Amino acid sequence: MSSNPLKPIAQTLKFTEPLRLQSGAQIRDYHLIYETYGTLNADKSNAVLICHALNASHHVAGENEKGDTGWWDNMVGSGKPVDTDKFFVVGVNNLGSCFGSTGPMHANPDTGKIYGADFPVVTVEDWVDAQKRLMHALGIEQWAAVMGGSLGGMQAMAWSVRYPECVRHCVAIASTTHLSAQNIAFNDVARQAILSDPNFHGGHFYEHGVVPTNGLRVARMIGHITYLSDDDMADKFGRELRPIEQGQIREGYRFDYGVDFEIESYLHYQGDKFATYFDANTYLLITKALDYFDLAQAGRTPVRENDLDLSTVLQQSQAEYLVISFTTDWRFSPEHSHDLVQALVKNQRKVTYAEIDAPHGHDAFLLTDERYHNVVRAYFNNISVGGAQ
Amino acid sequence: MSSNPLKPIAQTLKFTEPLRLQSGAQIRDYHLIYETYGTLNADKSNAVLICHALNASHHVAGENEKGDTGWWDNMVGSGKPVDTDKFFVVGVNNLGSCFGSTGPMHANPDTGKIYGADFPVVTVEDWVDAQKRLMHALGIEQWAAVMGGSLGGMQAMAWSVRYPECVRHCVAIASTTHLSAQNIAFNDVARQAILSDPNFHGGHFYEHGVVPTNGLRVARMIGHITYLSDDDMADKFGRELRPIEQGQIREGYRFDYGVDFEIESYLHYQGDKFATYFDANTYLLITKALDYFDLAQAGRTPVRENDLDLSTVLQQSQAEYLVISFTTDWRFSPEHSHDLVQALVKNQRKVTYAEIDAPHGHDAFLLTDERYHNVVRAYFNNISVGGAQ
Repeated sequence: MSSNPLKPIAQTLKFTEPLRLQSGAQIRDYHLIYETYGTLNADKSNAVLICHALNASHHVAGENEKGDTGWWDNMVGSGKPVDTDKFFVVGVNNLGSCFGSTGPMHANPDTGKIYGADFPVVTVEDWVDAQKRLMHALGIEQWAAVMGGSLGGMQAMAWSVRYPECVRHCVAIASTTHLSAQNIAFNDVARQAILSDPNFHGGHFYEHGVVPTNGLRVARMIGHITYLSDDDMADKFGRELRPIEQGQIREGYRFDYGVDFEIESYLHYQGDKFATYFDANTYLLITKALDYFDLAQAGRTPVRENDLDLSTVLQQSQAEYLVISFTTDWRFSPEHSHDLVQALVKNQRKVTYAEIDAPHGHDAFLLTDERYHNVVRAYFNNISVGGAQ
Repeated sequence: MSSNPLKPIAQTLKFTEPLRLQSGAQIRDYHLIYETYGTLNADKSNAVLICHALNASHHVAGENEKGDTGWWDNMVGSGKPVDTDKFFVVGVNNLGSCFGSTGPMHANPDTGKIYGADFPVVTVEDWVDAQKRLMHALGIEQWAAVMGGSLGGMQAMAWSVRYPECVRHCVAIASTTHLSAQNIAFNDVARQAILSDPNFHGGHFYEHGVVPTNGLRVARMIGHITYLSDDDMADKFGRELRPIEQGQIREGYRFDYGVDFEIESYLHYQGDKFATYFDANTYLLITKALDYFDLAQAGRTPVRENDLDLSTVLQQSQAEYLVISFTTDWRFSPEHSHDLVQALVKNQRKVTYAEIDAPHGHDAFLLTDERYHNVVRAYFNNISVGGAQ
């Protein structure tokens, strides 16, 4: 076990061949940015792909050149649950993101102008197709595992049915096979906040030199409420009032529309911060990718009701599954995972399911929790013993 | 039992004496608009006050002059659970509302200008104080019952501890003794959407001839999601796509940021409709009244942590209580009602508690459900037999 912290260097791969998207549109002359951790073994059997969720990137682990720690650094690294002493781990930034891969703030090769709102709506399946090209470029024929939390888990599931021969293990954490009406409703309201911000300019705000900050801020606040559990919010903030200044306790309400409660202060901070770095067009397209995902349809267009069911689609898969949910996650509650597990069992697929009793809601998949990490560690140890080395 | 439908006529009562508010501010030369149903008996012992929630008014039951049916017409009327053949029912519109009583769109007598954002922030306790003046003006010394759902239930509870001698029965439905951090968070985001709409103009949009429609629309959509249960949304909308036109089924996704799903269409409709009639300043102040309410503090200012507890405050009450919650209400879940019931039991107060297994979330308190209505009917029958007639 190496004690050196990971110092990944982001790499860029350019693709000239057009990628046909699920919408029918194509994207060409695009690039993907990625990082790798650990060493690919001789038979190239120890590669793990980590897929990211809404607000994350290719920078999964270690400390990058800017000094930023990766978003899943507690999960991926030397001696960690996904052990980079054993596995060659790939983190990739998805198309349409605002963290490096081709996205709405890049130039459209057809017009020479910034894409903005003209960047095509991409789906989970489109991301998987782009990731497959990266896989081949890295000389990998099959992933030991594809893994992700939330939206990242959807990509892992999509891999397992879209390219069954390329995935030995599918690890889907705090995820779902499809969004519920309530999930879609929250995404919709967040989008409406952005779309109706006068600074959005129909998605072409770059050329106006402005940012739809208010819309992004409200969108993030809505999202953030759904990432935390009710209990966790109660424990952390309750009805505590915000001090007037550091150490100066407020003795009663303000009786105006400023910040009374700590929870408001926290949400405003989260919203303000997010609006400084996240792209509004990226927010729109990622939430659409979430809404559109439906594993039972396995990327088919047009989507038809009752055309297929989850169990039928999973017959295509050859992978073994690790599915993990968290008891207080009300965004993608354990019931969402049960649907997947039941369909896998029905198809006599190998599946390990863990429902972790954790207080932190949806965000739990990013946090350090010994029981959760031990489940992942044990699973990856088995993969490694099973011939990944 | 009369078979004539109620045909209430709204009445207005002007108050010249200033009302001191919890904030320390005063409001003078205000009016309250109200309706009454049924007949006050000789000893004035059969009066019931109905308090309204966010999006409602004094028009509780029957058909008014505009032909609009009251918001609780399934609950209040001849032969209905709150039977107007036995009870004299009063519906009152609260201060700060946009449905008739003095509010932000009225003139401030001190300046002659429209209040707008200068309308004082009022609390549940302030509303109760104003309602008490109305009670006296109607020649009533004690309510047989004060009753409300959601925010209306908070007013009923506040009455029972603020004016114990004036309330024989307190009926609190789908309500809470205080908002949770998550409840406050949702209100906060809704307010931020309004406050950051450029058409809000710091609350003085009336003089600009505009309405912060986008902010109101987003605020209402957020609220609406919290009124419905996850299951109810799934049953009603699921992942159904919106037809392109009437009868024309969509065969796949749009791949743009228009409306794909029925749930989006429904929310937009609700948001658009609300923005045409509801006042933005009223929305802000009512959500603040919700956030500020804390029965354990019983309207004390400043609010101090641990100064008082619910059980201590309820020792002041002389009323009997009917408390009702709904299993799928996740805005004010049954746990919120349990807190109240436990504190009442601890104080050996008479309390009837019903937890109704209903699928419709928070909105259930407004809907017709036989078991729910039978509980209310039986309770009011007992009040009536007990000497209200």
